This record gives sequence, structure tokens and C-alpha cells, in this order.
Amino acid sequence: MSQDSLLSLEKIVALSKRRGFIYPTSDIYGGLASSYDYGPLGAELLRNIRNLWWREMITCREDMIGIDSQILLHPETWVASGHVNAFNDPLVEDKVTHKRYRADHLIEAWLEKNPQDEKIVVEGLDLPGIAAFIEKYHVKTPDGNDVFPPKAFNIMFQSSIGVVEGEKMPVYLRGETAQGIFTNFANILNSTRMQLPFGVGQIGKSFRNEITTGQFVFRTLEFEQAEIEYFFDPEKTDWQPLFKSWQDQMWNFIHGTLGIREEKLRWRRHSDQERSFYSKDTYDLEYEYPFGFKELWGIAYRTDYDLKQHIDHSGKDLRFRDPQDPNRSIIPHVIEPAVGVNRILLMAMCDAYWEDSENNRVVMKFKPNVAPYKAAVFPLVKNKPEIVGKAREVFHMLGKKMGTCWDDRGNIGKRYFYQDEIGTPFCITIDYQTLEDDTVTIRDRDTMVQERIHIADLNAKISAALEA
Amino acid sequence: MSQDSLLSLEKIVALSKRRGFIYPTSDIYGGLASSYDYGPLGAELLRNIRNLWWREMITCREDMIGIDSQILLHPETWVASGHVNAFNDPLVEDKVTHKRYRADHLIEAWLEKNPQDEKIVVEGLDLPGIAAFIEKYHVKTPDGNDVFPPKAFNIMFQSSIGVVEGEKMPVYLRGETAQGIFTNFANILNSTRMQLPFGVGQIGKSFRNEITTGQFVFRTLEFEQAEIEYFFDPEKTDWQPLFKSWQDQMWNFIHGTLGIREEKLRWRRHSDQERSFYSKDTYDLEYEYPFGFKELWGIAYRTDYDLKQHIDHSGKDLRFRDPQDPNRSIIPHVIEPAVGVNRILLMAMCDAYWEDSENNRVVMKFKPNVAPYKAAVFPLVKNKPEIVGKAREVFHMLGKKMGTCWDDRGNIGKRYFYQDEIGTPFCITIDYQTLEDDTVTIRDRDTMVQERIHIADLNAKISAALEA
Repeated sequence: MSQDSLLSLEKIVALSKRRGFIYPTSDIYGGLASSYDYGPLGAELLRNIRNLWWREMITCREDMIGIDSQILLHPETWVASGHVNAFNDPLVEDKVTHKRYRADHLIEAWLEKNPQDEKIVVEGLDLPGIAAFIEKYHVKTPDGNDVFPPKAFNIMFQSSIGVVEGEKMPVYLRGETAQGIFTNFANILNSTRMQLPFGVGQIGKSFRNEITTGQFVFRTLEFEQAEIEYFFDPEKTDWQPLFKSWQDQMWNFIHGTLGIREEKLRWRRHSDQERSFYSKDTYDLEYEYPFGFKELWGIAYRTDYDLKQHIDHSGKDLRFRDPQDPNRSIIPHVIEPAVGVNRILLMAMCDAYWEDSENNRVVMKFKPNVAPYKAAVFPLVKNKPEIVGKAREVFHMLGKKMGTCWDDRGNIGKRYFYQDEIGTPFCITIDYQTLEDDTVTIRDRDTMVQERIHIADLNAKISAALEA
Repeated sequence: MSQDSLLSLEKIVALSKRRGFIYPTSDIYGGLASSYDYGPLGAELLRNIRNLWWREMITCREDMIGIDSQILLHPETWVASGHVNAFNDPLVEDKVTHKRYRADHLIEAWLEKNPQDEKIVVEGLDLPGIAAFIEKYHVKTPDGNDVFPPKAFNIMFQSSIGVVEGEKMPVYLRGETAQGIFTNFANILNSTRMQLPFGVGQIGKSFRNEITTGQFVFRTLEFEQAEIEYFFDPEKTDWQPLFKSWQDQMWNFIHGTLGIREEKLRWRRHSDQERSFYSKDTYDLEYEYPFGFKELWGIAYRTDYDLKQHIDHSGKDLRFRDPQDPNRSIIPHVIEPAVGVNRILLMAMCDAYWEDSENNRVVMKFKPNVAPYKAAVFPLVKNKPEIVGKAREVFHMLGKKMGTCWDDRGNIGKRYFYQDEIGTPFCITIDYQTLEDDTVTIRDRDTMVQERIHIADLNAKISAALEA
């Protein structure tokens, strides 16, 4: 991690708080570990990301449907999925300070300072492997002390349903949204007209009780996932081309739809050691964050592992009956593209950040469809009712169609400066001439060029930029 | 509760599961108390409701912004808000079976069977009041037994952050989204250009560990709220007209935007006894569900109670500095319109349900902007590649703009029947004539009238219905 890249994350964090993208959760009470709230701009960014994902992954595809399952599921779900027994973090304790650390994070930090010729993938290391590594290389804590041997800690959040002691039922906050798709598979088959191959997606909060290091919203205890399970009959659909087509869809969404620079993206294939035992292939689409290339979006071929587990634990029949051959029923296989919405948001912010030193301004160069506000409306002066009234008309015309910001404070130059920093693609000023001919100035965020156009043409001009 | 109305809720429950609106959570594991997942149609309905609410309450208003705060907040938040000490349900225990019941629900059921001349508002009764009522009227459990005296049980879900015993920090799943707005108030003032009066809204999951009775998604342990805190300076803004304007906005949203029948809606003012001690006025907008008129959307004037509590508990300055008078700073007052998204959804389904006995069909007469799918696209036959290809073109043209359903199974009559039952306003059939002149039939859900129009005119026709 170079000093430069550290600096840029700090700039993003500072701008996020200063302008209202992201605040530390419960700030007034001293904050909560690895927890963040989204301010007015962050909330709009999240909505744009969710809606673009949903449109492209669900609405535009005849073979996809969405669902919205609960955060609290029956606890047996997480026994079946393996989360209760195996969803663990390896922790070590400093022998002197007794502080706890993620052992894999200590090793990763050690590797950055001590590059090895041989490629070592830390994510795939099991507990004995981690212990051996720490012993071999004398890995120490940031305070320079030795650690006790690593232990596994389950990272599911627990709670309970019911209010009377002795009758409480333990529940977990879901560790991933995917299981809500698997447990509803039979209901989906019975209530829709979907035929294999088809996929089910959902967006929602998940929770992992992790010890995290300062990577802002990249890794938080509470986070938002957008997961897809794409079901197919392995005898009728060849998994490799299907897997490839989903990789293409992921790339197109990130580079095409969201406009992220290609040179900051790469695929990383998981090693055999790193991959789950039931997965036949796994790739991560990685983005180069200020703290290095990190997983943005994983895609895994999970075979029929999850449905089989739920069949075993529930005793229910979750097979798909082949409509061409009623005697044949199969457990579908799945390909799972799973992305963190907050990671997309952080990527979008990092990728958009631009210090335009020539013009002495900071610009968030979001693609217009991603930007929190698409337009800002300025009455030139605040004390001229005709101008304010006209500006309000323009605001309400645009507000019905798109996120629009009203700004009547300070001089126009300062308002441009503010809108650049929050990434608004177009600033519209209502001035004295507007009162005469219904034209306004519209100013482009990136080029800073202003042109005069008729109010009636505003919608079309901005909409065209949103479709681009 | 009449037999008739019970029947209709059962019909909604059955249709929900049969067609994929709503499934019982973790069905394959025997379900989870008062918990529901949203299937493909329910997920689309929820998205439509959220997006319409956001557009009307946030995007279209220059005085409103949205945020998205965490479910897990600092535990002190809930001490300040009073939830830890006072967010309780009154429970009683059957002396024979030892089953637990909500005492207020037993009283409500008793009142339905034993109507009193004097109006008794059960929601406002405190624990001694409940005990006195039960004793006076000999209220019994459904099994006909007496109960032990009522006790208060806190309904906040508890969990903890941290993985090491002795270092765990207790946290609560939020019982309402509103507190995330209050705790971020200083950050919002510092990072936006908002001036009083202005409001902050958010949509998100909340959790209450309640003992509930079978009212489907009306009352569930995990639910979704859309809450607004509208901040104002009580010396500069008169609260009554402001309160009234929010009541109008709520009514317009439910009746105007969502198209709910006015005769099923009414306002109910809270009695002095029922209202929270800090509230100056509270109304519920009620809808007549199959189980009676029930709260859909509450609006309360909460004065400066919440901000004051957070100032006291955090020691932070959460006052607003008057820009016209820099020496004056105030704790803003708030009006809070708070609605349950799942209650809107259940209302929309109940209101849409129509048994068209003349045509022997069930129709969900959703207003087009609410309907899960806006259009369904049918290739007349499945085995004619030109027709299927053309249908796919139409699907992709519409899918970019709106929720669209692909359906190529069974005869056209059966497909209409299915689409009527899920509330799709328009069915579009691609047939042999389409191959010659690019026209299709478009069939109206409510009138069942078909007309032939050009493919190029489809978007405009359906969009017009969505704007209506």
C-alpha cells in the first residue's frame, strides 16, 4: 500500500463526510466499529446502483426474476448451508497487549512488506496453514509482539425470537442473501412459469461479525448484497459458456453501464486451494481500490451443493421436473454471481474522483446515470420572486423524472464548485433572460461549457446523457 | 370480524403463495413465526411502492432529502430514544396451558364480541389499566382460561458485536428507522445546504420481537418502514397548517398515486390517553383491511423530544443556527409521517382483488404504476422462430423501460387468465400478422378489449397509462 493510495482513500472518506455521501454510524455516540450510514448523496447513489442492477439483471432478462426474502430465516437454514459450523474467521491474540487480530490480515500485511517470489494466496489458508506461516516467518502484531496460536470464531450474528425465557428460539442475521433464494426454490417453481435455465436475484442486507481493518465501506459488519443464483440442468446446458456469459454480463455492467475505467478492472481466478470444495470454478472481478486490487464481484459454479444440503436438512423435494420428460427430475446446478452494493459504491466514488488542478476544483466524474443528482437548478438571485418562481417550475418539471438539487445559496461560481464536488452533471441557471424567452443556461460538469437552451428542451438533453 | 372479511384475507394469502407474491419464510423448515418472504411479484410490488414513495416524498420536493442509515446503531441510541426502557408489550400467561398472549389483543378480541357503549381505546391502556380491565370483565384466553397478571416485555431484538467473550458489545436491531435520522442530524446540517424547514426520509427494515396474531404481512417481526422527520422552527412555522399539509400529502399518495378507494380510508385522531406524552397531536390514516380499519400511516407532532433526548445522552450540540440571526440557535421541532411499506403492499393487494364473476376470472386491478409487471409479451406459438424472435424484440424494447413478463406457455386464453390474476395491465400478442405489418394485439386487463397497434406505438401507450 503506497502513501499515495492511502491518501486517496482518506480524501474519499473526508469528501464523503463533508458533502454527505457517507457518515460514521452513530457518530454522536462515538461511532460503532466498521459501521457507516449513507447521507443524502450516498442514499441516492445506492438507489441508482440498485435500480441499474435490477433493471439489467432482472427486468431486461426474460430468464430472470427477483425476490425479497427476510434477514431472519429459520436457524436450520444456516446449519444446512454450513454457516453455523464453518463460517469462521481465524483470530490471533497479541501475547502482550491481548488485542485480537484477523490472522489472515496480519499475514497479508506481512506479505506486502516482505514480497515473496512464490505467489502465496492467503484466503485459501486453513487454520494449521496459518499457524505454520506465522511460526515460519515470525509474523508479529502492529505493536511488534508475538501472537498466541490462531483460533476460529464464528462470524454469524445471533439473536432470538420470543420474549419469554425458556421459550426463545435462536435466530441468526443472515450472513448472505443467497440462502433465501435456495429455501424458496420450491415455492418459486410452484408459483411462476419459469423453466430451466433461469435465475433468481435479490438485493438486501447481510451481516458478518468480523474484525475489520480500516477499509471504509469496503468491509463492514452490516452490508448490502446483490446476489444471483442461476439454475440450470447440467445435462442440457454446458456450464462453461454459461459461466462465461455471466462474466461478460458482470464486466458490461461495471465498465459499460457504470462507466468504470477498464484499466482498473481485472479477473482473478481462485486457486484450487482457495476454492470451496464443492465449487468447480470461481473468479473474482477485482477493482483497484486505493488499498490495492480487491474483490468486487465473485462468480462461482457451486454445482448442486446448496439445494442438496437443503434437501438433506429439510426432507423436502426441491427437484425440478423436466417438462420434456416427466419421469426425469433433477437437482439443478447453479452459477452464482454475487456482489456487494457498498463495494460498487466505493468503487464508483474512487473512480469518479478527479482533482482538476487546472481549474482548481474537485470533480466527481460519475457517469450521469450513477450521479446522485442529475441536475441542479439555480435561481440567479434569491430575492426576485419571478426568477425564483420560474426556477421552481423547472425544478418540479425535472424532479418528477430524476434526482434534482435545488440550490439558491451564494454566488453561481460557488454553487458550480459545490455541484462539481458532488458530481452533478448539469447545472441550470434561471436568470433575467429566462423571464423574457424561457431559455436557461445549462453548464456541463466536465467541460465547464455553458450553453443557452429552451426550458422545453431540458428534459430531452439530460435524458439523452442518462441513456448514453 | 365477519366471516366474509376473514374469507377475503384467506383468499389474498392463498393467491399470494400460489402466484408468487408472498411466501411464508423458511417454508421448507416449517416456517418462522410472523415472517414472510416476497416472491417475484411481491418483490416488484415492493420496489414500485418504494420508488413511488421516494419520488413523491424526496425527489419531487426541494425541501426533502433521503438517507440510508444502518440497522445496527450504537446501543445508547435506544436508551436515549426510550426504546430500551419503555418499548414493551403487555403479556399475560394462561393459568392452565401457560401459553402467552398479548394482553391488549385479548382485550380487543373481547371488545369485538362484547361491544361497549363507551368507546374504549385499548392502545392507550397502561399495565395497571390492562390489569384492571381484565379483572373487571373477566377476560379469558381463547382456551377459556384465566390469566396471570400482565407483565411488560421489551420487544427490541438483541445481538452483540465482537467475537471474543468479555469484549462483546450489546447491540439492538433497530425498532424504527427514525432514530437514524435524529442521530445523523448534525452530520446532515454540516454536509448539506438545507435550511429549516426541511425533512429527511428513509426506507429500511426494522424489527420488533412481538407476539403477533394472524394478520399476514400487516404485523411481522421484521418489516419495512418509510419514515420522515420534518424539522421546523416553531417560532417561524405554525405547526397546524404544516401538519395538515403532510396529511394531504399522505392522502394524495395513497388515494391519488396508488389509486386506493377513498371509501376504504379514514383518519383517526389519537386520544389524549393514547398519545405519547411528548406528542401534541397524532393521527392515523387507516385502511379497511379484511380484519377491520387499521393503522396504515401515522403522523405525529413529536415537538423537540427526540433531538433533546439525543442532546442529553450524547452531550453533542444538535441545535440549528438561524442564518438570519447568528446569535439564535434552536432545537427544531418535528412532524413525523411514518408508514409501513408492507402495510401499503397488503392494502394494495386487498384493494385490487376483484372476482369478475361475469367473466369467471380473478383480477388484481392494481393501478398500472403499482402493478408488478406493466406488460406481458406472448409469442402466439412457441415453435415458430420468426414469431418467437419478434416477440423477444418486443420484450427487450419494453424490458428496458418497465417490468415486463415473458410468457410462452399454453393457449392465449390461459395466459390472459394468469396475467389477470397477477394484475398485468397489458398483454401483447405477437402473431402471424405481426410478421407482415409489425402490428400486435394489445389487450386491456380490466375491459378485456383487444386492439391492434403498431409495435412502435407500444411504449407510448403503456407509458401514458403509467402516468395516469
